[in-house]
Amino acid sequence: MPLVRIDHPAILTATEAAAISQAVHVALIQVFGVPADDLFQVVARRAPGEMVVSPQYLGIRHSDLAVFVQIACSPGRSVGLKEELYARIAAGVAAGTRVPADDVIINLVETVRDNWSFGAGIAHYAVRDRARPASAS
Amino acid sequence: MPLVRIDHPAILTATEAAAISQAVHVALIQVFGVPADDLFQVVARRAPGEMVVSPQYLGIRHSDLAVFVQIACSPGRSVGLKEELYARIAAGVAAGTRVPADDVIINLVETVRDNWSFGAGIAHYAVRDRARPASAS
Amino acid sequence: MPLVRIDHPAILTATEAAAISQAVHVALIQVFGVPADDLFQVVARRAPGEMVVSPQYLGIRHSDLAVFVQIACSPGRSVGLKEELYARIAAGVAAGTRVPADDVIINLVETVRDNWSFGAGIAHYAVRDRARPASAS
Repeated sequence: MPLVRIDHPAILTATEAAAISQAVHVALIQVFGVPADDLFQVVARRAPGEMVVSPQYLGIRHSDLAVFVQIACSPGRSVGLKEELYARIAAGVAAGTRVPADDVIINLVETVRDNWSFGAGIAHYAVRDRARPASAS
Repeated sequence: MPLVRIDHPAILTATEAAAISQAVHVALIQVFGVPADDLFQVVARRAPGEMVVSPQYLGIRHSDLAVFVQIACSPGRSVGLKEELYARIAAGVAAGTRVPADDVIINLVETVRDNWSFGAGIAHYAVRDRARPASAS
Repeated sequence: MPLVRIDHPAILTATEAAAISQAVHVALIQVFGVPADDLFQVVARRAPGEMVVSPQYLGIRHSDLAVFVQIACSPGRSVGLKEELYARIAAGVAAGTRVPADDVIINLVETVRDNWSFGAGIAHYAVRDRARPASAS
């Protein structure tokens, strides 16, 4: 269900980009309970100048290694789960790349369950919700 | 009103990319009743590694031809209309390209009508809704 | 808080791209009251064919200089403020580039305050809102 857009500076290696991709996916699985095979991401390499980032905001300092992670996902997760997701993503990115946790900017865009098709023109969650109206995720 | 982001693998030809663009637009016209001259899309060609796609999810298999279609649009369409839109887009893409219908991933992001300006700094729908509060579309 | 995606045709110069980036940021500061150091943008240079734009919609004509400005931001601004934002962005872009005001397409995507992390895995606004439940912005 999540469609993830990762934007990262071109100075990161392909290995680091893959580590960011993986860190985001693992956090979504572990914290939001996303199925392991529910993986849809655009990982965009950005040339110098294509990412504009404040050097500091809310006491957090940003460098030229900053990455953006924008996640379109279904609504309904608690604030506590969202906080755990952000912490897990930032820690995972910092563990697998040169990007410090401070440089991981995250934004969720929640969009209702009938707004998704995972292929074949089927609204998978709408179909499932009709069958099991009270189903979770 | 829709702002459409299409991400497709670079192995598709320019002709195929244009066919995807057109298939999405025609489906929006025919199913959502979008005006024919309401056409705003980013069609992004993605290098290998920039798109990360699960090989299979919910029984649908995905290949290295998978495309993402993310559509920001006004809210209010019924689930039935959304289902028809997905079916029409997937069929149109499959008819005009090598991309099978299974590889067409679609996500809608609904955003209210006063969130749009189509140029000249005017909030076109907000202006229209003030004039005709009960207007459709 | 805003995460801004600017898509512009590659025929614009780097100076013009920077002027668009700056015009959007200044308008967000002056109209939406966004802090000056709350600056997170992707400014994407698009090759010919990557942007598909209607030649005319709602009486506004578009050229091959058209730019898209998509802003993910917190909800709650009035329609009047949004209208002022659009006007300010369009005027600022027209003043600093060859892009006419008619060619500035804007879309807001509003997403709740606990959907943001500005680094270090912290949900900054969620933390702040717990401390000051009635806080603005």
